[in-house]
Amino acid sequence: MSEVLPGLKEIEAAAERIAGVASRTPLVESPALSKLTGHEVYLKLECFQPIRVFKIRGAYNKISLLSQSRVVAASSGNHGIAVAYSSRLLSKKCTVVVPENAVVEKVDTMVDYGAEVVKAGRYSGEREAAARKIAEGTGAAFVHPYNDPDVIAGQGTCGLEIAHQLDDIDTVLVPVGGGGLISGISTALKAIRPKTRVYGVEPRSAPKLTEALKAKKVVTVPSPASIADGLIPSALGELTYEICSRNVDGSFTASEDDILRATRALIRGARIFAEPSGATPIAPLLSGPIESLGRRVVLVISGGNISQELLAKILTS
Amino acid sequence: MSEVLPGLKEIEAAAERIAGVASRTPLVESPALSKLTGHEVYLKLECFQPIRVFKIRGAYNKISLLSQSRVVAASSGNHGIAVAYSSRLLSKKCTVVVPENAVVEKVDTMVDYGAEVVKAGRYSGEREAAARKIAEGTGAAFVHPYNDPDVIAGQGTCGLEIAHQLDDIDTVLVPVGGGGLISGISTALKAIRPKTRVYGVEPRSAPKLTEALKAKKVVTVPSPASIADGLIPSALGELTYEICSRNVDGSFTASEDDILRATRALIRGARIFAEPSGATPIAPLLSGPIESLGRRVVLVISGGNISQELLAKILTS
Repeated sequence: MSEVLPGLKEIEAAAERIAGVASRTPLVESPALSKLTGHEVYLKLECFQPIRVFKIRGAYNKISLLSQSRVVAASSGNHGIAVAYSSRLLSKKCTVVVPENAVVEKVDTMVDYGAEVVKAGRYSGEREAAARKIAEGTGAAFVHPYNDPDVIAGQGTCGLEIAHQLDDIDTVLVPVGGGGLISGISTALKAIRPKTRVYGVEPRSAPKLTEALKAKKVVTVPSPASIADGLIPSALGELTYEICSRNVDGSFTASEDDILRATRALIRGARIFAEPSGATPIAPLLSGPIESLGRRVVLVISGGNISQELLAKILTS
Repeated sequence: MSEVLPGLKEIEAAAERIAGVASRTPLVESPALSKLTGHEVYLKLECFQPIRVFKIRGAYNKISLLSQSRVVAASSGNHGIAVAYSSRLLSKKCTVVVPENAVVEKVDTMVDYGAEVVKAGRYSGEREAAARKIAEGTGAAFVHPYNDPDVIAGQGTCGLEIAHQLDDIDTVLVPVGGGGLISGISTALKAIRPKTRVYGVEPRSAPKLTEALKAKKVVTVPSPASIADGLIPSALGELTYEICSRNVDGSFTASEDDILRATRALIRGARIFAEPSGATPIAPLLSGPIESLGRRVVLVISGGNISQELLAKILTS
């Protein structure tokens, strides 16, 4: 498998490809979170991407490399938005298969960007099967949300930026869904800043990375469910597992309470509007500094598509 | 006066100076606002700057050119945050004079970034007098929020980006406070894209630009007050008036109701969290398309430091 793992060269090529489409997002010190956690905290604000989430990096890199004029994706939210947005820019026809209980705001955004939206089941397996069937029937390219070297190389551009934006980083904490973002970021950082440690953070109910690192293989976790709705695939991909097993220094799991507290701390303390998945890297630090992480810590705030209902609840309580 | 007006050369120099500190913010199509207004709407998202407002561009450009090790500013909000943030990055001591009724969240942010905050009066005249007195007493440099060629050149980098990010722009709509942003943007655009029209938008109670264009001189308006609290200086500066009189194609005034409706449309429709001052350019388009503006319109969403109280109100009503 190792010959298909994307490396620094592929990430640098992706960076050229996505320039002008994805943003070089701010990496800013957060005095409020430094005070709260006892670390010197910097935030990598992927919630300031054009579509408010990092997934534009991987989706645009992947789709710009396709010869097909149609693409199809399975997604409950941010990946679908990224594929719809990128397809529009690249003048490709786009279909997104969403779950029957998808968040209305996220579906509306996909439709706004011109995607055809199809509903199928409630679980990611059903969505992916339906999407692959559409791909076979129409000749469209299926764009996987994370288990794809071009998608991972695209997400890696976030790590490339971090490496060039700040020196002397001890640790980077990255939220983990299917593992695409942490695979890309860790590949870039291990190549450029090998002393910087990379940790994943995931919901306690969806410990895909934690269990995989322990078992030394892909592990499927039963019934993942979390307010961090971007972090609940039931397993890493073969490719993201392979990369994480080489690059990632460890992982943390976070309770639902701590993920909500993290989201609240970011909104009310640092005045950054992130979604729970994006705020998850703060969760392990809420009980005070973790000495082994060192002093200077970068938290990757992966996205900001919080539902207006949850945001209202946080602002009024 | 004309020999001190900043031109394209000064703006390009500012762009190099602020690279890596201010962001090249996204310029994105907004299908939701296109539907609402009948124009082809693009948003220049200055609310995605590290400090959530464009003022980092001018403040950092200005302060990086100063020989003094201390700076002082008078501000009720965003300018003070920008000066505090830039001073911290440039290792300068910073004092901000704020009004006695300043918004707590904005003052907290200045303090977070290490500024000393002094309260003085309720009107901008009192603040500026107090700040200039501190400057004289301490040898600090006074950083004006808009009537300064280096500040204007910094704000102009926003126009430089717009010119390079999108073709065939008919009109750019810019919110107007003291006129620094529209002066910078219009200077860049008239140099690079002379066919693109630039209009200002300001609160009906603070028609500084509208009255000045009519009278062909700086006009002081009585008792400006608006929910768009970044747009209520009582007059343009001599320098910003001079530039606007040459470059700006016209202006609109917006009612308080329309500014609030614009803020709501941006949050609930396009899911962009802007402050009322930042959403103001939408206001003139709420009653349907304005033919003279042409088809493709860029709205400069200048900032996102909305109070949590107002945001909660919008999300729950």
